[in-house]
Amino acid sequence: MKAQAAVAWGAGEPLRIETVDVEGPREGEALVRIVATGVCHTDAFTLSGADPEGAFPAILGHEGGGIVEEVGPGVSSVKPGDHVIPLYTPECRECEFCKSGLTNLCQSIRETQGQGLMPDGSSRFSCGGKAVLHYMGTSTFSEYTVLPEIALAKVNPAAPLDKICLLGCGITTGIGAVLNTAKVRAGSSVAVFGLGGIGLSVIQGAVMAGAERIIGIDINPSKFEMAGQLGATDLVNPGDHGAPIQEVIVDLTNGGVDYSFECVGNVELMRAALECCHKGWGECTIIGVAGAGQEIATRPFQLVTGRVWRGTAFGGVRGRSDLPGMVDQYLAGEIEVDRMITHTMKLDGINDAFDLMHEGESIRSVVYF
Amino acid sequence: MKAQAAVAWGAGEPLRIETVDVEGPREGEALVRIVATGVCHTDAFTLSGADPEGAFPAILGHEGGGIVEEVGPGVSSVKPGDHVIPLYTPECRECEFCKSGLTNLCQSIRETQGQGLMPDGSSRFSCGGKAVLHYMGTSTFSEYTVLPEIALAKVNPAAPLDKICLLGCGITTGIGAVLNTAKVRAGSSVAVFGLGGIGLSVIQGAVMAGAERIIGIDINPSKFEMAGQLGATDLVNPGDHGAPIQEVIVDLTNGGVDYSFECVGNVELMRAALECCHKGWGECTIIGVAGAGQEIATRPFQLVTGRVWRGTAFGGVRGRSDLPGMVDQYLAGEIEVDRMITHTMKLDGINDAFDLMHEGESIRSVVYF
Repeated sequence: MKAQAAVAWGAGEPLRIETVDVEGPREGEALVRIVATGVCHTDAFTLSGADPEGAFPAILGHEGGGIVEEVGPGVSSVKPGDHVIPLYTPECRECEFCKSGLTNLCQSIRETQGQGLMPDGSSRFSCGGKAVLHYMGTSTFSEYTVLPEIALAKVNPAAPLDKICLLGCGITTGIGAVLNTAKVRAGSSVAVFGLGGIGLSVIQGAVMAGAERIIGIDINPSKFEMAGQLGATDLVNPGDHGAPIQEVIVDLTNGGVDYSFECVGNVELMRAALECCHKGWGECTIIGVAGAGQEIATRPFQLVTGRVWRGTAFGGVRGRSDLPGMVDQYLAGEIEVDRMITHTMKLDGINDAFDLMHEGESIRSVVYF
Repeated sequence: MKAQAAVAWGAGEPLRIETVDVEGPREGEALVRIVATGVCHTDAFTLSGADPEGAFPAILGHEGGGIVEEVGPGVSSVKPGDHVIPLYTPECRECEFCKSGLTNLCQSIRETQGQGLMPDGSSRFSCGGKAVLHYMGTSTFSEYTVLPEIALAKVNPAAPLDKICLLGCGITTGIGAVLNTAKVRAGSSVAVFGLGGIGLSVIQGAVMAGAERIIGIDINPSKFEMAGQLGATDLVNPGDHGAPIQEVIVDLTNGGVDYSFECVGNVELMRAALECCHKGWGECTIIGVAGAGQEIATRPFQLVTGRVWRGTAFGGVRGRSDLPGMVDQYLAGEIEVDRMITHTMKLDGINDAFDLMHEGESIRSVVYF
């Protein structure tokens, strides 16, 4: 079938809207009509060429909401008409990782997904006869996309897909990092580095966890208003201080925070986020994705004196098991999504979404098909 | 009073046996007769001059067993005749750290302890009229030493002090790192980097925790026999392999270990210990103390994909609360100490203990007074 899609033909080039050919679903796969998709920093990271796994041409996008149109043989967990959120972290429930109960990092299709291919090693996309790669197993920048059944979270159809698409990445990642990965204790203090969609969602999560003090940190003070509305108690612009930001936070909190979250992907901030943690028990969770080959460093004394350095992907959320509940929480008003959407546009305006993000103007843009 | 002591007059110099003057205990302090003391790598580290906090002249030693001789005003938790283990990590039960329930890193006397002084800012030691500093708040290389009451664990007098002195540091640190800090799960796999006194104690702890696979790693294969006796199931000499040791361990374990422990103080090994952990859930605990200014580094991807980097000091043990029970476990045959003692000597042979350690000949030397 034909579909409108934004194709990334090469690193650093704007996306081009194309009519692509989408093959139907094979065994264990489903064809999904994407109703709306967010545009996330990870898409921009790959498009920039900095992602070592990035390959072109490809159809990017991983923060979508859609409706199942057709299923291949053997598919039992979704059927045409189901509302779904595509999962870049699938949940097969059969691999060593899923069965461990210790991680959400299902590895069952990782190798082909990393190559931009479906689990059988082929692509369902082509354009003008030329094969086009999938991306993160989701490719939500296409009106129609094909996913393995294990990469679809079936959600409450009462929820608007043009809102809950953001639960496909950023909001879930931020909230999950707090609740699943760091397991923030009630009454604790939290520092959030970077107040984009992820950081704001960390603030939401911290409020849900009952944190008493939530310090939002960003060099762009235009982010502070919404951070405060969502529950940040302190807002710090590193540019206003002469001292390194970790020292500023340690001073502000009389010894450091109980938890910190790095939501930018900057290795120096990852260090600061660790070092602003309280001696004896402070835990830093890295959410941001750093550039290829970049390294984090610190003195081991930071760890020996009780700080913990960890990371998270998709907020530790098991997509098929946990995401339906989060959609219900959204419907119950317990998770804020709508205010994160600062801009909307049709598919042909998708490059504007990247510009708005780079300029720090948007929190999240949602693209409609 | 007069006491025989091994005095460190300067960095890199051998200790000199001197008759020192020891002042009696002041308020909140106790005078302790040291019966025996271990010699630990940390003593050697400070003596070498590499310790940025190291100051001279000082009386080193922090792994002792002794008997209370006299107490100062206001001391209520110990009395003359009590058998005690000096604690370089005290337990005041009143500071923010003690009361947090989250750490053993009591900070109540940290500042003066770091300066080689008693909590009132003075030293109880002098030699030929010249003040001599304390070390780690313990100075167990003196026949008589003075400690704050909060730095004394009162233990079962049935336990031989010339054995349980080793519970003052190395053995407790290794076992505690496994049971208190990493909280190793039964059935899991463990990699231990460095098979000195700490590493062998990590092996003991891993056996106590019910670990199924325990991989001991050392470049000195003479350490392997005792490691195997204590419970190591695999023994690896990095020198036998062309590949980086983390890759060797990942291959050996089909993806990495559940837990790793760095017991050397080498920042490259700290990285290897993290990177040999299993994706999704592997946790690395740093025990070794690195040289001044040295840093650890890794790609943040290691953390984002589920590994955790943490550290421990004194194995997370709260000395006054937990050590008496560990001494009872020793008496019950549940903790092995005796086999760790490969050499003994009188105080005047203490420099031999350092030589034996540097040559990799000893696990632990115990010095008698």
